[in-house]
Order: sequence, then structure tokens, then C-alpha cells
Amino acid sequence: MNIKKIVEKVSPNTQEKKQVKEVKLKIERALCKIVKKYTLIDRYVFAGSFAKNTWIAGHNEFDVFLVFSKKANIIQLEKQGLDCGKKLAVALKGKQHLVYASHPYSLITLPNRFSLDLVPCYAVNNSEKIISAVDRSPLHVDFVKKAIHKNPQIVVEIRLLKQFLKRFDLYGADDVVQGFSGYLAELLIIYYKTFEKTIKNFAKWRGKEHICFGSNKQKKQIAQKKYFGSAPFVVIDPTDENRNVAANVSKEVFDKFVLYSNLYLTAPKNQKEAYFFKKIPYLKNLKTIIKQRKTSWVFLKIDLSKESLQINIVPKIRRLLKGIERTLNSFEFTCLNSWFFVEKKQAVLAFEFPSTTLSFFERKIGPQLYNHQHLLVFLNQHKDAMRFYTQDSRICADVARSHSDALLLITLLLQQKKVGMNASLAEAINTRRFGFVKFSQLTKHCRESLADVLSDKFEDLYLFPD
Amino acid sequence: MNIKKIVEKVSPNTQEKKQVKEVKLKIERALCKIVKKYTLIDRYVFAGSFAKNTWIAGHNEFDVFLVFSKKANIIQLEKQGLDCGKKLAVALKGKQHLVYASHPYSLITLPNRFSLDLVPCYAVNNSEKIISAVDRSPLHVDFVKKAIHKNPQIVVEIRLLKQFLKRFDLYGADDVVQGFSGYLAELLIIYYKTFEKTIKNFAKWRGKEHICFGSNKQKKQIAQKKYFGSAPFVVIDPTDENRNVAANVSKEVFDKFVLYSNLYLTAPKNQKEAYFFKKIPYLKNLKTIIKQRKTSWVFLKIDLSKESLQINIVPKIRRLLKGIERTLNSFEFTCLNSWFFVEKKQAVLAFEFPSTTLSFFERKIGPQLYNHQHLLVFLNQHKDAMRFYTQDSRICADVARSHSDALLLITLLLQQKKVGMNASLAEAINTRRFGFVKFSQLTKHCRESLADVLSDKFEDLYLFPD
Repeated sequence: MNIKKIVEKVSPNTQEKKQVKEVKLKIERALCKIVKKYTLIDRYVFAGSFAKNTWIAGHNEFDVFLVFSKKANIIQLEKQGLDCGKKLAVALKGKQHLVYASHPYSLITLPNRFSLDLVPCYAVNNSEKIISAVDRSPLHVDFVKKAIHKNPQIVVEIRLLKQFLKRFDLYGADDVVQGFSGYLAELLIIYYKTFEKTIKNFAKWRGKEHICFGSNKQKKQIAQKKYFGSAPFVVIDPTDENRNVAANVSKEVFDKFVLYSNLYLTAPKNQKEAYFFKKIPYLKNLKTIIKQRKTSWVFLKIDLSKESLQINIVPKIRRLLKGIERTLNSFEFTCLNSWFFVEKKQAVLAFEFPSTTLSFFERKIGPQLYNHQHLLVFLNQHKDAMRFYTQDSRICADVARSHSDALLLITLLLQQKKVGMNASLAEAINTRRFGFVKFSQLTKHCRESLADVLSDKFEDLYLFPD
Repeated sequence: MNIKKIVEKVSPNTQEKKQVKEVKLKIERALCKIVKKYTLIDRYVFAGSFAKNTWIAGHNEFDVFLVFSKKANIIQLEKQGLDCGKKLAVALKGKQHLVYASHPYSLITLPNRFSLDLVPCYAVNNSEKIISAVDRSPLHVDFVKKAIHKNPQIVVEIRLLKQFLKRFDLYGADDVVQGFSGYLAELLIIYYKTFEKTIKNFAKWRGKEHICFGSNKQKKQIAQKKYFGSAPFVVIDPTDENRNVAANVSKEVFDKFVLYSNLYLTAPKNQKEAYFFKKIPYLKNLKTIIKQRKTSWVFLKIDLSKESLQINIVPKIRRLLKGIERTLNSFEFTCLNSWFFVEKKQAVLAFEFPSTTLSFFERKIGPQLYNHQHLLVFLNQHKDAMRFYTQDSRICADVARSHSDALLLITLLLQQKKVGMNASLAEAINTRRFGFVKFSQLTKHCRESLADVLSDKFEDLYLFPD
């Protein structure tokens, strides 16, 4: 592997660094003027990877925290925070969007390729009780900056890890990805020193383990007690021993990280680059590839145009997807892949089966024919069988299936609300705002996301020769 | 159950008895004249169920043995046997057909509903060494007749058992059925006394067991030694302790008998009649029923017009069928039913699958992700996988299947002769005298036979309400 080449690709070049600096300066100048007029705002802090110099080339999101004095109540904080956003957008000739996390904040798209998250928070010190979930972000910036100051080489290692995570959709702590936050990636490199060592460690992960910074033994023990037994992957926040930085990493994402770490280590040198960058987005071929798989896909579209549905929709849809998948599997529709995609006003759920229809009956294989007692129990159990027969001296019964059509079963599950769904989702479904669509009816974004799922390993391997 | 009604149906009525008597007389008169002219023929013997008065109503086959003196060599026996058949057919205005078993014999179809097997054999006494396989038939007639003389009521019981066997295609010792011969059915009733007791005994069959007539302890022990360990079902021939009358009963037929015995005993009284008589031949609905099963059938036709192929074809086709089925199952085409039918100049093999096509790839589920050593072995084993992914913390791989189309696989197997087939069959297949046909291209007889398979239990249960 030419690691130099990869380092080059993940590191922003001089021009990009210059541009980021310029944009940052513009934002600071505008913010400075705006913030002055708010007595409750103590200061603003640049957070995120731009602030820590750990961003990977092409990254475009600024994170800025408006640090409020503790005198401000939460309503003031929210209102004034959004006010600032509005003014900042005007000043920068950008556009303000409202985003809801633990409290509402502004996402401002700038006229160039950049965007800006402007998040209000309270000022807190290390180990002080936090008020809002984002209050500790400025502390994180400080911790990482200090570590980099001590050992500047880790910046490159952080970029490599972030790019690796990004390539496999494991990067991002939001609801959709449920993956590694930038801060978590930084902490891992601070702990293990290099990308390679981090990967090696995770490849051999043996279940429960934890990472703890500093040398305070008592604190370590408390943290161990607190977290062990509940999570397999614990990283104690060095700025708050009550917090597991990896708490939001889903089991699936963590498992993927373990898998890809192994694949990376065992891959031939000339293939390692593929673990950082996808070769070609093969969207054009997606339809062909889906056909070649010789499987049946079901695409379920759910209308989310009702506003109440849009809040916190991702976990709801994920729960619905998993619920449907579980039920389908229990009825012998082997679900080879399940996947969902949420767009502004709709969600698409997809399931891949060997076939969407099953035989009218299923074969139940019973005990040995010559085991009279067990044979009688089986015959009695399957009184309504369509047919009894023998196979290799075992009793068999063809028993009518309750469900032999996946689409009908999904429709039934949705109508009867038999799969985990909350009230608003159930209502949307009650009013029949769902339906099955064809592949060709999916939006481009939706198809791109599906292409990603199907290329979990290497997309070029999907373009099999014949 | 109105057993009287069933007894009535299986017992020939006065008119039938009279007719059988008349036909028998006609045959005897004609034979008497013909046999006189052959000095090597000692006598003729009426065998089969007409001779023993154990036939079931509607039975139509006379069995007559031409008993040759031991002076005759085998060529004389065969030639003169067929000569007699020719003359008898002329005398009775019937038609002679040649049948090949251990040696050739005549099947004569008479102008009424009856037919006649005229089989040459040698005269032997009890426990004397037999020369040809059919020589002991006259001895069997004597044994059964004596038993009936002692206990005339068993005639009805024999008829019930024969009808039960017939209803489930378990009656007949030929290659196609591989079932219970008439003689075996008679021996079972002589041994167990009644139909009900026979059925009860078989329902509780526990694997190996044997039936031995008479009280000669030494002979019994010798017979036990000789047969135990090789066959689960042994009935020592009372006229020849070296012979297992049940030797030709296939494991499948025997298993079916055990199953149907159980079903019969547990069935409600008003349904027992269905265990003797099929209700309606539902041929008309067969296509609908096949459709309703929501499965895929493959019908393979093999041309047998080449004469050399017609000798002993049934076991060859059976072997071919089982070979193909085994291979298909090993490639994950779950074979729900397999079946064959041999007509004069063609054989049809049929296979029922959930689907004749499978996904392009198959999912291989590997070890736990956190078991590093096993994980590496799995990754190495499936180096060429299309995709690796995780599921419930296990490693999975999508591996391209070698075969995803059942028809292509069957064609390949036949062309490469990879499934058990002898030289003549291989030759027929080499010259591409096989092909796939549609259901509608099957002959009526062929479809009737298929209908039988699908109605193994009760055909009316297949006509499900919706």
C-alpha cells in the first residue's frame, strides 16, 4: 500500500487550508458583531474538526457553539440562538434551516461549498454538571487540541481513521448512521497513537473492553462498574467520567468496524486503497446488478408529508423496518437484505428475498416413524395437514402456510399495526398513506443509498465478468 | 366405520363369483387339450388370488403355472411355455403379449375384462431346491388354501388388507410398486388373524422384527441369524426357510404402510372408508391444484423408443430420479416431491421445488465476529465472496452459487452423466433424446399417476375451500 498516497488524499492541500481559513475569518467577523448585542451570550466557540485541524479533505461543515451565561433560561437560549442564526445567515448571504436535536439550532448553508451549524449551549467547566447535551463540546475541543499540541503527528492518523469510517458509512453520530462521532475517532487515535494500531486492536476485539484516559485509579474503577455489563464498547469521556463517548454507536456499526478492520488487515497491499475510497459510484448499473442477483426486492413507500411525522422519524422507521423484517423471517421469507431511506416527505423501506412468494404449504419434518409415541403426537399436532408422507423413515406433513405472499403479509402487518410503531406512524399508516413502488419509481438519492448497501465490500466485485 | 359396508365392497358378489368360475372353466378346458401334446409338461396349476379365493372384487388377473418335468432344460421350458401361450390365446380368442421377468412368459388378454399370466415353471416339493424363481408359487397356493380351510373367516380379512394396500399403491411386488405381494398379504393375515390386528401391529413397528411360521425352533433360529441385521421386515416363507417373502418390499413402501396404519387407527370412524377407496379421481382439478400449491414443477421427458432401453427400465429410471434429486438438494433446490412415470416409449421424471431458480448468491453464515481466529479462517475460506457483512455479530458472506437454475443443472447432470445411469440410458441421453415438457404436454395416464402422488392422504383435502 502506498500509504503516502492515501495520506495525501485525506489531507487538505494548501489551497483548501487557505480557503477554510478565509471562510472561518468571515464567519468570525460577522459573529463578533452579532454576539455583542446579546448580553446573555458569553462567547462563541469554533468546534468540530475545522477547529481541531483534524478535518479530512473535502469536509465542509463548520460547528460553532454560542456559549450562553448560566443566567439565561432555556427559552432565552433557544430563542436568542435562533435569532443569531437568522442574522448570521443574512450577514453571510447564506440560508438558515431549523434543525431539531436535544434543542433547536440553525444550519446555515453558505454561498460556497460550506455549511455551518450554529448551536447554543451553556458554559460549563470540566466535570461540572452539564445543563444541555451540547455544553461539553467546547471542552472536547480543548482536550483534543492539547493532545495534538503534544503529538502533532496524530492529525494524519485521525484523518486516516475518519476517512476509513466514512468510506463504510460508520462516521457520524446522528440517528441515521448511529456511528462514530468525530470526537470518538479523535479519542481512539489519542489512545492507540496510530490508525494501524487502532485497526489492529479492533480486529481482535473479544467482546467487552473499555478505554479510559488519565491515571486516576478510583475514577477508572467507578467508570468500569458503571459501564461494564451494559455495553461492549466503552470510551470514558476524558472531560466527563459519567459519559460513554461510544454509547450511541450501534451494535451493527461496531460489528462492521470489527469486520472491516479484519478485512483491511488481510487485504493485499494493492487493494488497501479501496478501504478508504470507493472506486466508482455504480448507480448506472444498479438495476442490472439487482437483476443479476436473481432475488426479489420489495420497496415500501410511506408518506411522511404530515409534519408531526417528521420529528425524530429515523428511529421510528428503523424500528418499523426491523419489526417487519423479524416477522417476515419468522414466516420463512428469508430476508437477505433490509434497508431504509428517509427523504424529506417520505420514507422508503426495502427488503430483499429469494422470492416474494412461498409455496402454499410448508414441509414439517417429524420424528422417526418407528417411534410410535412421538409419531402419534406429531399426527395429532398436525391434524389439519394437507398431506402426510414419509421421508427417510421420518414422518412429514405438508401444512398450509398462514402467509405465502410477502407483500400481502407486509400490508397486513401495517394495517394491524402488529409491528413496533408509534401513534403518529400508526395514524399515517391507518389512513393508507403507504404503498409498494417499483425500483424505477425510486428517487435518485434513494437509489444512490441503495447502491451503497449493495457495495458494502467492493462495488467492482459486483460487476462480475459474465 | 361401517366395516360391513367395506367388506361388502371388497368381496366379489355372486354374479362375479359365477363369472370367474365360468372363465376359469373355459381356460381349463382349453389348457387341458393343449398341455396333453407336450410330454415335458406334467400339469398346470391355477395360482394367484383366484385359485385361493382371496381376490378382491374387480380383480381380473388369472395366474396359471405350467409345471414342467425336471427332464426339460431351460430352453425347452421357455420355448414350449410361449408356444402354449400362443395356442391358448387362439383358443380363447384372446391376444398374447410377451413379458420378461426372470424368464419370458405370456400375458394373454381375454375378450372380457380378464387377463391371464401363463408362466412356465419346474415341479418342486417343499424345501427342495428350486430351479426357477416361480417354481414355488404352486407351493404357496397349497399353504394358503390349507390355512383358509382351517379358518375360512380369514378370507374377508385378506381382502380388507389387500384393498387397503391397493388404495395406497403398496400392493404388487413388481419393479414399479416394490410393494406387498398377494402372498405376503395372505401370510400376514394367517399370522395375525385379522386385518385390524395386522394394522395395529405395524402401527407400533419398532424397527427390526420378523415373522416365522411353524414351531421348529432350530429353523427359526437359523432364519433369525440369516436375516437379522440386513432387513427390518422379515417374513420367512413357510414353504422355504431360505426365503424372505418381504425381501422385495422397498423401505419407502414399508414406511408408508407403517404411516397409513397409524393414520387409519387414529382416523375418526366416519373417515375410515377413505382408507380403502379413493373418493374421486380429481384429474380435472389437477392443474388447478398444482397451481394452488404455488410451487414450480419440472417435467423431464426421456425418449425410450430404442428397444434396448425398455428392458428393466423402471429401476434404472428410479436410480436416475434419485440421483438427480440428491444432487439438486445438495445445491439447495429443495425438492418437495419427486416422481416418475414410465410409459411404453418414454419416461417422465418430475420434480417439485419452491422455485426453479435461486438467488445468484448464497449466504454463508460464519463464526462470531469476536472469535478472531475463526473469523480469519472464514475470511480466508471465502476469499472470493461477493460481499462480507455482519448479522447478529456473526460474519456472513454472499458467495456466488455454482448453480442457480434447476433446469440448467439437470441438463448438465444428464449431459455429464454425473448421476447414476447405466450405459444404454447414458447413450439415449448422449444423443439428446431428452427434454423438458410442460404439464399440458403430459399424457392422460401420466397425469393420473401424478394425481395419485398428490393425493397420498385424501384428495378431497386438496380441494381447499377458498
